[in-house]
Amino acid sequence: MTDSVVYDYWRKLAERELKASPDTLVWQTPEGIDIKLLYTHHDLGGVEHLDTLPGAKPFLRGPHATMYAHRPWTIHQPAGLSTAEESNALYRKALAAGQKDLSLAFDLATHRGYDSDHPRVEGDVGKAGVAIDSVEDMKILFDGIPLDEMSVSMAISGAVIPVLANFIVAGEEQGVSRDRLSGTIQNDILKEFLVRNAYIYPPEPSMRIIADIIEYTAREMPEFNSISISGYHMQEAGSTLVQELAFTLADGREYVRAALAKGLNVDDFAGRLSFFFAIGMNFFMEAAKLRAARLLWSRVMEEFKPSKPSSLMLRTHCQTSGVSLQEQDPYNNIVRTAYEALAAVLGGTQSLHTNSFDEAIALPTEFSARIARNTQLILQHETGVTKVVDPLAGSYYVESLTNELAERAWALMEEIEAMGGMTKAVASGLPKRMIEEAATRRQAAVDKGEEIIVGVNKYRRDTDDRVEIFHTDNAAVRQSQIARIEKTKRQRNPKRVGAALAELGAVVASGKGNILYAAVEAARARATVGEISDTMREAFGRYTAVPEVVRKIYANAYHNEPEFETLASRLNDFSTFLGTKPKIIVAKLGQDGHDRGAKFIASAFGDIGFEVVAGPLFQTPDEVAELALALKVHVIGVSSLAAGHKTLLPQLVGALKRNGGENIIVVCGGVVPRQDYQFLLDHGVAAVFGPGTNVLEAARTVLDLIEAEARMRNQWR
Amino acid sequence: MTDSVVYDYWRKLAERELKASPDTLVWQTPEGIDIKLLYTHHDLGGVEHLDTLPGAKPFLRGPHATMYAHRPWTIHQPAGLSTAEESNALYRKALAAGQKDLSLAFDLATHRGYDSDHPRVEGDVGKAGVAIDSVEDMKILFDGIPLDEMSVSMAISGAVIPVLANFIVAGEEQGVSRDRLSGTIQNDILKEFLVRNAYIYPPEPSMRIIADIIEYTAREMPEFNSISISGYHMQEAGSTLVQELAFTLADGREYVRAALAKGLNVDDFAGRLSFFFAIGMNFFMEAAKLRAARLLWSRVMEEFKPSKPSSLMLRTHCQTSGVSLQEQDPYNNIVRTAYEALAAVLGGTQSLHTNSFDEAIALPTEFSARIARNTQLILQHETGVTKVVDPLAGSYYVESLTNELAERAWALMEEIEAMGGMTKAVASGLPKRMIEEAATRRQAAVDKGEEIIVGVNKYRRDTDDRVEIFHTDNAAVRQSQIARIEKTKRQRNPKRVGAALAELGAVVASGKGNILYAAVEAARARATVGEISDTMREAFGRYTAVPEVVRKIYANAYHNEPEFETLASRLNDFSTFLGTKPKIIVAKLGQDGHDRGAKFIASAFGDIGFEVVAGPLFQTPDEVAELALALKVHVIGVSSLAAGHKTLLPQLVGALKRNGGENIIVVCGGVVPRQDYQFLLDHGVAAVFGPGTNVLEAARTVLDLIEAEARMRNQWR
Repeated sequence: MTDSVVYDYWRKLAERELKASPDTLVWQTPEGIDIKLLYTHHDLGGVEHLDTLPGAKPFLRGPHATMYAHRPWTIHQPAGLSTAEESNALYRKALAAGQKDLSLAFDLATHRGYDSDHPRVEGDVGKAGVAIDSVEDMKILFDGIPLDEMSVSMAISGAVIPVLANFIVAGEEQGVSRDRLSGTIQNDILKEFLVRNAYIYPPEPSMRIIADIIEYTAREMPEFNSISISGYHMQEAGSTLVQELAFTLADGREYVRAALAKGLNVDDFAGRLSFFFAIGMNFFMEAAKLRAARLLWSRVMEEFKPSKPSSLMLRTHCQTSGVSLQEQDPYNNIVRTAYEALAAVLGGTQSLHTNSFDEAIALPTEFSARIARNTQLILQHETGVTKVVDPLAGSYYVESLTNELAERAWALMEEIEAMGGMTKAVASGLPKRMIEEAATRRQAAVDKGEEIIVGVNKYRRDTDDRVEIFHTDNAAVRQSQIARIEKTKRQRNPKRVGAALAELGAVVASGKGNILYAAVEAARARATVGEISDTMREAFGRYTAVPEVVRKIYANAYHNEPEFETLASRLNDFSTFLGTKPKIIVAKLGQDGHDRGAKFIASAFGDIGFEVVAGPLFQTPDEVAELALALKVHVIGVSSLAAGHKTLLPQLVGALKRNGGENIIVVCGGVVPRQDYQFLLDHGVAAVFGPGTNVLEAARTVLDLIEAEARMRNQWR
Repeated sequence: MTDSVVYDYWRKLAERELKASPDTLVWQTPEGIDIKLLYTHHDLGGVEHLDTLPGAKPFLRGPHATMYAHRPWTIHQPAGLSTAEESNALYRKALAAGQKDLSLAFDLATHRGYDSDHPRVEGDVGKAGVAIDSVEDMKILFDGIPLDEMSVSMAISGAVIPVLANFIVAGEEQGVSRDRLSGTIQNDILKEFLVRNAYIYPPEPSMRIIADIIEYTAREMPEFNSISISGYHMQEAGSTLVQELAFTLADGREYVRAALAKGLNVDDFAGRLSFFFAIGMNFFMEAAKLRAARLLWSRVMEEFKPSKPSSLMLRTHCQTSGVSLQEQDPYNNIVRTAYEALAAVLGGTQSLHTNSFDEAIALPTEFSARIARNTQLILQHETGVTKVVDPLAGSYYVESLTNELAERAWALMEEIEAMGGMTKAVASGLPKRMIEEAATRRQAAVDKGEEIIVGVNKYRRDTDDRVEIFHTDNAAVRQSQIARIEKTKRQRNPKRVGAALAELGAVVASGKGNILYAAVEAARARATVGEISDTMREAFGRYTAVPEVVRKIYANAYHNEPEFETLASRLNDFSTFLGTKPKIIVAKLGQDGHDRGAKFIASAFGDIGFEVVAGPLFQTPDEVAELALALKVHVIGVSSLAAGHKTLLPQLVGALKRNGGENIIVVCGGVVPRQDYQFLLDHGVAAVFGPGTNVLEAARTVLDLIEAEARMRNQWR
């Protein structure tokens, strides 16, 4: 049968069942792909990759010929706690249990190149990872851990130079020369400008850092992966999978060009570029995404004419999606993570991190971490999915999807090329805006119940389980870090430090030589992370993003819907009375640069009719209070994702009170555990919007609060 | 490229990676299928079904053209508690929550046609389901539940006549005539002879019951599915998937023939036959199994030349595997169930029951039941897998597997045909033996660690979490049931009961007419389940299985392995000294017919060198004690799967003591919660072997106990 005969026959059957055209059930994904109800071999007509093999160009069916049947993916569960001591204890346990790889997460202060004693990072030290101020912290971290046997992954892209320098010196002083160090450093700055904002310097000098690290590792560290090109954070920030694919590969292409511009041979470093993708809940599309990524990367690398076939090969680490985890009914997250893990495996990942079910609210406990690890062990040992290479190959649906994802991502990559590459595209703000639009669109779909999340916007329970969560005492962490910095500074040779930093400054300013060599010398002399970063900042300057807010995405999603219209008109009434729109500043406190929540709140509130000021990132409570008073806002909405709320919000309320801003309403949203709500309310926060809050409902609450405030001052009926 | 050119090229790549032939990694499944590392389109050469469509003959790609895109599978979570009152409360809650289907599990006494006051069922009343003695229980069960709106599934095959009769009368007395009752009754007796043993009468008369029910429902109950042909219990008992497929479809073919022999038209009942499969952990094979099942069933039905195309269609309910659940680290079971559920959905099931994670040890709690249900909701709403019909279609691996499963199952069905059909095959004992051999082979693979179960034979924890488990007070349940029977008997018209039972007896004895009509009249008169069953038993007789034990499967698996040899030779020494092999009777107490555990223990112990007596099923403690004394056994090994251990084991120990058998060692294995171990040890049980016990270790412990006993009597060094 020909394509149309088959389809017509099926169409009649379908119409009889539906009493309607099957076209009414076509699923348009956020990527803009139309998913049909039926795929047959007729759908594979134009697909060119079907005859390819795993282990051979273009590697779509997998980088290796035998894949998991020979060696399953690496189970890679990061564990970074607040202090070097605690993390070290964890690593020793892992080592004793036979683990051969460690993964290091850093606190926000370290990411942004601040020492723990810096006044701007009071709420950030020891949050979401370990604080590293100098080699001394690294040495404690790896005490008793043989660095010539362990592979170490370090998730850092901002202060990557001082951290990598400290790692190299810690190895050196343990007797392990740098050529024997193995592991991966994230070192992917472009995505920071797009989504996570853990940058320090502007894009151009940041690209020099990348190139210097690629050069250094190519020359000095043959066992070390110089970069982990990450789409993960894009999906976390709300990108579509096509955006994640395209921007990540475009980032990679840009890094390759930067390295080539340094005069390196492509085959000398291509094998040390690794990738990092998120795996969300769209099961088949995630598997197809990894297949498409390998296809496209081989196409990108062909441009650079490598001589080794393996230089065309994309190898990737994956992590299950953090944003797919829900605070509500948290054991559901075990199920979500299980499906995501399977999708990653069917896509052919080389390494996998499965999230723990409680990570929507806190760091994992020992129990939740075990179940997350067991999810992978069960996949490897009990399901049989490791026995066959690329088991979905040939599926009409999956192959069509692979093809369509590849085509759409390639088209977007061509747009980036037309702009002059990713560094320029990033500077233009376009990719960032595209991701923010996608994120806002998705939030609207969830708020409207078009996209169902079990236990959140449907099947919600009346009561919530409280799960045991992981706590750290961050004030104590900060005190002990400060004491160690002071000790280190007392014991070091100030002349040697000064000379090393001066040399570093000269290398940076000259635009010649390799920054990392100079930074390693400074680290040997016990220059701190902050000192090294400051020295670089002097020549490179500091990058400050101008916050933009996308418009009309949220309103368009609610076009003509009474729920939205009612609220907008109520707001309009109040604005008319007031003579001005109620003004809200959406603020981010501290070094947490995750601004997905802040961005879609700003966007949605603006569409509803508030006057919205998108506050700058990385503010102190005093700075936010000052800005709010200057702008005469009615409301400060603090978006918190990195657990600093208990320190920073009371400080903000205090600063307002001291400066005559006591009638400014402070609300807070984001990742705030229920356990902390009362504490915040007791400290002057008017409302807390936890994960899964409907944005329209939040806007209604904020309007209620503003009206009540006006009423109190007899300014409203 | 031709097949061999492609394969040769890949083979070279694979050999380079492996430094060995990829053939060394071919996976031979329990089904005897060789799973290769690589599948390409060359593997689909001989496959004939690739061009078929969903919603059309042979329905391999799904019974409906639009499948879940139009309407997702039914989430079907049975809930039967110990008493009619408790279950009714649960049903009312479900009804209030909008649920439109109920599923009824019965206690063991009911399954086997005993009233709750029968002395043989003292430990069985209210275990694993609700006790039904008469219409009065049914009426309480469905009080306030509108039976014209609810679809009711009843999992019973033994005492199917009195239970269905009671259901019909309960409807009648609620004002719902039988033509408006909807639901499904299991009514699948052949598989009981194969595996679960919840039979009452011999195979031939049991087939008449089936045919009578098909006839009755075809005439009187147009909304009711007359049979649920079940492979589930075969897989639970340890069958391979090929056996599950072949025996289930062969059972179905036999039922169709029985109905045709009654003079029915095939199109009048074919649409009311439904199937029920287990979904275990072999992910792709389970999905392929359901596709193969639809292909083969349409082939079977073609034989009967139906005129409606839909008569060729296999529709099925699935349940995730109970035996894949582990007592150890029980939250892992959430992950297992999630993968099994996805496999069922990718296979195209019409309805699905996901097990709760604590069901390896007890009935589900409200919490565990919610997570099980949410697993399905997440699949339906969050993963996107419902959007495309048969998404695995075209996969080289899955299509090859579908084809190979179908071929192998068909070959086995042909063997059954050659024996004269399934009733005769069952009588020959062959299918049962095949399943027991497969179960024993699998147990050996697990014991040897060839098949890994996470948290059980690898990655085992030192400590075990105790999860909150569901408890019932069965003595109280039994007392209240007995009181209700007495009241019912006091209030009924004895003459009417007598007449109805006499008429029933006449219909049964005559071999003419339809038993169910007569049973409905008896139920109206308040004859009890026991009375109706006894009346039928008078003419039909009672079926007693002769327990057989498979030989040498376990020993062959351990061929020449020191662990096995050491134990066998130690046992041999002791036997030589004793002048006889130590003798063990493997016993089943009460009405629990699940004998997988008993069978492989008997088989393995025999291979190790014990003299093993496989005790008959359905024994009272007194009967087992008597037999043990008569046979002069050293050990009684009680296999318990249905929670009767706390009643029955102390009775057995008491019976031994009273009759001079105090030196007979009693051990117990099976589904015994850790909470109960001490209770059993305090009541004279020498050792308890919980789920996941290694059989060799158990044998070693039993030998230790026998030697210690001999030593105490100075009969052993």
